[in-house]
Amino acid sequence: MKNNKIVGKQSISFEHPPVITGFSSVAGKKEGEGPLGSFFDVVEEDPFFGGDNWEDAESRMQKMAAELAIKKAKLKPVDVRYLIAGDLLGQLIATSFGIMDLDIPLFGVYGACSTMGESISIGSMIVDGGYAKNVVALTSSHNASAEKQFRFPLEYGNQRPLAATWTVTGSGAVVISQNTSNNSENSEKSSGGNEKKEPVIEIKGITTGKITDYGVKDSMNMGACMAPAAADVIYQNLQDFKLSPAYYDKIITGDLGYVGQRILIDLLLEKGYDISVNHMDCGIEIYDKETQDTHAGGSGCGCSAITLNGYIMDKLLKREWKRVLFVPTGALLSTVSFNEGNSVPGIAHGVMIEGR
Amino acid sequence: MKNNKIVGKQSISFEHPPVITGFSSVAGKKEGEGPLGSFFDVVEEDPFFGGDNWEDAESRMQKMAAELAIKKAKLKPVDVRYLIAGDLLGQLIATSFGIMDLDIPLFGVYGACSTMGESISIGSMIVDGGYAKNVVALTSSHNASAEKQFRFPLEYGNQRPLAATWTVTGSGAVVISQNTSNNSENSEKSSGGNEKKEPVIEIKGITTGKITDYGVKDSMNMGACMAPAAADVIYQNLQDFKLSPAYYDKIITGDLGYVGQRILIDLLLEKGYDISVNHMDCGIEIYDKETQDTHAGGSGCGCSAITLNGYIMDKLLKREWKRVLFVPTGALLSTVSFNEGNSVPGIAHGVMIEGR
Repeated sequence: MKNNKIVGKQSISFEHPPVITGFSSVAGKKEGEGPLGSFFDVVEEDPFFGGDNWEDAESRMQKMAAELAIKKAKLKPVDVRYLIAGDLLGQLIATSFGIMDLDIPLFGVYGACSTMGESISIGSMIVDGGYAKNVVALTSSHNASAEKQFRFPLEYGNQRPLAATWTVTGSGAVVISQNTSNNSENSEKSSGGNEKKEPVIEIKGITTGKITDYGVKDSMNMGACMAPAAADVIYQNLQDFKLSPAYYDKIITGDLGYVGQRILIDLLLEKGYDISVNHMDCGIEIYDKETQDTHAGGSGCGCSAITLNGYIMDKLLKREWKRVLFVPTGALLSTVSFNEGNSVPGIAHGVMIEGR
Repeated sequence: MKNNKIVGKQSISFEHPPVITGFSSVAGKKEGEGPLGSFFDVVEEDPFFGGDNWEDAESRMQKMAAELAIKKAKLKPVDVRYLIAGDLLGQLIATSFGIMDLDIPLFGVYGACSTMGESISIGSMIVDGGYAKNVVALTSSHNASAEKQFRFPLEYGNQRPLAATWTVTGSGAVVISQNTSNNSENSEKSSGGNEKKEPVIEIKGITTGKITDYGVKDSMNMGACMAPAAADVIYQNLQDFKLSPAYYDKIITGDLGYVGQRILIDLLLEKGYDISVNHMDCGIEIYDKETQDTHAGGSGCGCSAITLNGYIMDKLLKREWKRVLFVPTGALLSTVSFNEGNSVPGIAHGVMIEGR
């Protein structure tokens, strides 16, 4: 029964690939000053985003991102059948208080920093399955709310080890729509402008990750915690679709940073795949290593979300890249699990995004 | 494009309704002593479930529930394509550490105590859409881990107001499978035994909730916080499918308790629907009002999950009920949002479960 959609062990291939018809990136000041700053739709100078506290700031940022993506898709909130959204805070409060006013049915999701991959995966199945014309996949992270949730009060000004990453302040929303003939009219204009046909960005398939635990207990080295999960999903994607890494212009992880990247490349080499040429990590790209030293790079749900909707979508729309495997990565921990001596398992969700 | 599945404003009708082929209920001691005790698969006397701490206890309970449901469906973990699971703890640690060993691709979800409705909804779309033959929807709550997460250390022995509910220790898992001709062989045996054909339990449709906020700020009165969300989903389900409440043998909310039930019935009366005859609340059923005084009733993700998989499934399999609208209800708060003076919004997810 319709099992041709099911590919290999962990993947789905979409018969009528859903289309990205709107996307937004709302970033904080530090992210705006980084190498990708010019690609973001909004760079907000006020870390509170006009709100009362860090959680409120993140909620406001998420609402901005959702509204902007819906607007860019030339839709209204009422045209969006489902919102699939989540964040890093306990009980997803940034999401709950951020998107309430949009009045859209909500599926709350949690995949730590892999949330953008999870929400796009679920959203794509909902759209491809014919359960919605348009859905929005949405996530966020805020440096200050994340530090408060997971680490130390900012006022301590505590030192961070070199393996630590810096939580990105940013929120990204993606409008996923049914693949109809007029999608090219709805899609974003190519900045190149030389092509007759507007580019269309499709979700060709997904590879869903399992929890992967190599027993790393250092919450200040999340790259090492997440790299095995990323390696597993990338390996499974290549296996399931019988592809070589060269099929993709870029294989893009979420927030492994410099430490995690080395582990990822080594793990995949052991399994027979060399991705060293075409691997890119959003956490490495988002900050300048020299002038913005954040130690191991950027992290957080927002890191991969705004890099996707800023930089990656720009490359796809300009047709500089045709095919990317987008693999947001999450470290599954809470202060409770960490303080009880548990390891920090990882999870990753792969999304095949292709332009035509 | 395939829009016949989309019904009204917020609902889905499944063309080939997915089937519940396995289900489990693992309960704590207090729940086992309640009126529904005899319906649960497992009643565990040890509140730690053999674990080291309350979070570990909840993880072990969730793993037990998942393994039992998969076994009852005559499947192995490798036959399950996706696990859609979540719990109440920050960053879903009960789930992450509970289901890791099952080695099944995971979508982590958070809908507070509405999680069973959310996970069944997503799982049913995945199965009906042809993206999986079998998925497991799973959730849990544990009284002690929830008190630690949301309220006071148990050792304080603090007093609770009369509007407060008691978090259920319990975990339920549901195996959702494609509707094939041989489902009747896989389905649970009817205890009645007089029917020639084995009963089949189907997910006929879903109605997905929005966040609903009436501005209630009392986290010790969650029934009042959640009742508007439940009313909204029940109203929309009846509207979308053009049904009267009498269509259902029971309209079953998750954990409104005595206070929330009165508000729900009143809110729906105002909208022209009288559900006073066929309404049931899992939070009211699960404890004995006289001998187990828990004040306003039971609550938590586990409350509706084990009531579904214990009591409700039994009624459906015995064909005493044919159609139920199962509406788990969630209160969206964290200690942070509450201490910052925010209200406690609600969400609810409706699932139409029917036997034949």
